[in-house]
Amino acid sequence: MISGRRSLLTPCWPRLRSEKKIMVRTLYWEDGKLYLLDQTLLPWEEKYVACTDYRQAVAAIREMQVRGAPAIGVAAAYAVAMAGQQRLRGEDVSPDQVLADLTASRPTAVNLFWALERMQRCWEKAMGLGLAEQAHVLLAEAERIHREDLEANRAIGRYGAELVPPGASVLTICNAGSLATSGYGTALGVVRAAADRGLCVWACETRPRLQGARLTTWELQQDDIPVTLITDNMAGYLMQQGRVDLVITGADRIAANGDVANKIGTYSLAVLAAYHRLPFYVAAPLSTFDRTAASAEDIPIEERNPEEVRRVGREALVPATIPVYNPAFDPTPAALVTAFITERGVIYPPYPEKLAQVLS
Amino acid sequence: MISGRRSLLTPCWPRLRSEKKIMVRTLYWEDGKLYLLDQTLLPWEEKYVACTDYRQAVAAIREMQVRGAPAIGVAAAYAVAMAGQQRLRGEDVSPDQVLADLTASRPTAVNLFWALERMQRCWEKAMGLGLAEQAHVLLAEAERIHREDLEANRAIGRYGAELVPPGASVLTICNAGSLATSGYGTALGVVRAAADRGLCVWACETRPRLQGARLTTWELQQDDIPVTLITDNMAGYLMQQGRVDLVITGADRIAANGDVANKIGTYSLAVLAAYHRLPFYVAAPLSTFDRTAASAEDIPIEERNPEEVRRVGREALVPATIPVYNPAFDPTPAALVTAFITERGVIYPPYPEKLAQVLS
Repeated sequence: MISGRRSLLTPCWPRLRSEKKIMVRTLYWEDGKLYLLDQTLLPWEEKYVACTDYRQAVAAIREMQVRGAPAIGVAAAYAVAMAGQQRLRGEDVSPDQVLADLTASRPTAVNLFWALERMQRCWEKAMGLGLAEQAHVLLAEAERIHREDLEANRAIGRYGAELVPPGASVLTICNAGSLATSGYGTALGVVRAAADRGLCVWACETRPRLQGARLTTWELQQDDIPVTLITDNMAGYLMQQGRVDLVITGADRIAANGDVANKIGTYSLAVLAAYHRLPFYVAAPLSTFDRTAASAEDIPIEERNPEEVRRVGREALVPATIPVYNPAFDPTPAALVTAFITERGVIYPPYPEKLAQVLS
Repeated sequence: MISGRRSLLTPCWPRLRSEKKIMVRTLYWEDGKLYLLDQTLLPWEEKYVACTDYRQAVAAIREMQVRGAPAIGVAAAYAVAMAGQQRLRGEDVSPDQVLADLTASRPTAVNLFWALERMQRCWEKAMGLGLAEQAHVLLAEAERIHREDLEANRAIGRYGAELVPPGASVLTICNAGSLATSGYGTALGVVRAAADRGLCVWACETRPRLQGARLTTWELQQDDIPVTLITDNMAGYLMQQGRVDLVITGADRIAANGDVANKIGTYSLAVLAAYHRLPFYVAAPLSTFDRTAASAEDIPIEERNPEEVRRVGREALVPATIPVYNPAFDPTPAALVTAFITERGVIYPPYPEKLAQVLS
C-alpha cells in the first residue's frame, strides 16, 4: 500500500483529523493487518509492509523496517494481537513462542519488553476465554498501547516546548520523531510543539543507518519545519560557533539512575553539549524507563552487522576484509543529562530521587 | 598507470629501497610527467593520473584526487615545475597565472601556499636564465620539497613513536598517512614508527569524503598494521570504554598560537579526548605552521559542495532539496592539544612561546 492519506480516517488515528498538518503514519492496524511504513526505503519510497503473521513483524523489527523505541513497542503489541488472530484462524501459534520470538528481535529498546509484558499479562488474564475473545482483548490492548503512546508524545511535546526558546537552533541525532513512535515523536514532538514560535533543526545524519539523514529531514520537511543536514562529526564545530542552543534526543532505555542508552553518537553529543554549556535534554515516554536497570551497566548494547558500516546502500566503502566495530547504541551517564522530558513533565536532577518519584 | 611497484626505483624515491615494507607512492615525477595516485578511486582501484599540464594538477587538487596538506604542497610544487616545462615547450603559460590558479585550488591547507611561495621565490631568482634552465631549477626545487617532506615525515615518526606506549590503541581521523604526504605520513608516520612494538588503530570513517574508511584502512592494511573502522560518532563511546589510549591527527594549518585547522570532526575528538583525559597529539611538518595566522580566526575554513553530504558515491541519501552544511575542516583551540609532533621534536605548551622557538 503506498502512503494513502485517506486511510488516516481509520479508528485508531482519530486525533489527527483536527491537525493542521497531517502527520506521517508510522504504523496502523486495518482489516486484521498490521501496516508498517517501511523505513528502510525512505526518503525515496513511501511503501507499507502489510503483516498478516506475527513473524513478519518480528522480521520487520529486526531489519529496522520499523525502528525507534516507542514504535517498536507498539509494533510488538500489534504483533501479539496478530498472533491472537492467527490462533483464531486455527494456526499453530503458541503464546510462549510468540513472546520469545518478539523478545529476541532487538535487545536495547526497553519499550519492546515493556509492551510485551503488558500484552503477556493481558493474554494470561484472557486465557480462560474463547479464541475469538482472546483475539479481541489482545487487539484492544495493542490499540490502547498505541493510543497511549501518541498521547504521551503530545504531552512530551507540550512540556518540552517550554524549554525551547523562540528562534532556537535545536540539534538532534537519529530519528526520535513520528517515525520512531506512534506519531508526533519524542524529541521531534518537542520540536513540533515549539515550531510555531520559530526554530531550526540541525539533523546529524547518524551513521551507519543514517536515520537522521533519511528520516528526520524527510519528516520535518513534511511539516515545513526548517532542517539542515550535517554529518555526525560536524556537531562540535557548530557548538563552537554558537550555532546550537540545545540538544534534544530520544532514548532507547533509561536506567533507574538516569543513565540513557540511545543511538550511537548520543554520548559524544552529550559530552560536547556539557563542554559548551548547552542543555542536553532526553525526551522519552515513561515506557522507556527501566526500573530494573540500576544503571547503564545493566543495559545491553546491541552490536549489529559490520556490513552496515562497510556499506551505504549499494555503495561499498571498504572491502569485507576491513575489521569493523558496530555498536548501535551508547550509554550516556545521567550526570550529562540536563533534564528528562516525559508525559508527566520535565524531570531535573537529582535523578535517582526525582525519577523514582515520577515513575512510582 | 596501474600501481606498478617496479616504478618505486625512480630517483625521487631512493629511501624506499631499504624499507622492509614497500610503501604506497602518493605522487611522483617521471619522464616529465607528474603522476598522482587518484585517491577518489581507492580502495577499489590503484590508478594514477598522469599530468602534463599544470591545470590538470590544479583540478586534481580541487577534486581531491590528491589530498592531505603535505601532499597538496608537493603536488603544487611539481605543478609549478610542470608549468616551467610547458613554457619551455612554447606553451603560453604565465607564471602569475600558474601561481594564481594553484593558490585558488583549495583554501585551508597552508602547505599549498608555503610550497607555492618557495616555488615563486625560486622562479623569481631564475627569471634571468633561459627557459630550459628555469625548468631545470623549478623541477629541482620541487624534488627538494618532495624529499624534505619525506624526511620530515620520518623524523615526525621517530619523535612521535616515543609517545606511543607498547600495545597502545590509537584513534585517528581522516588520512594523515602516506597518501596525505610524500610518503610515510604524519599521524600515520607515528603509527608506522611505533608499530613494531605493537599497537592497533581505530580509524574514524570521516564523513563526508570517507578518507578514514577508504584511505587509512587501505594504507594500514598494506603495512599489516591492525586497524578497525568505526563511524565518526563511535569515538566517544570507545573512549568511555577505555579502549583508546591516545588520539593522533594530522593538520591542515596551525596558527602561531597553536590553534589547529584539520579535517571536520577533529575538534569533537579533541573535546572528547580532553573529557576522557586522553592525550591529543597533532603530527605535522613545519610547513603546516602558519606564522602569519595569529589564531584559528585567521584560518579560512573551506565549505565544499553540499552534494558531498547528500551522497555517498552513487548512493543518494537525501533529495537535493534538503539543506546541508558542509565545512571541510574545523578549528581546534591550542588548549586542547597535548603536544605537536614535528620534524624538530615534540613541542609541549606553553605554545605561543615554545612554537615560536622551534619555528624561528
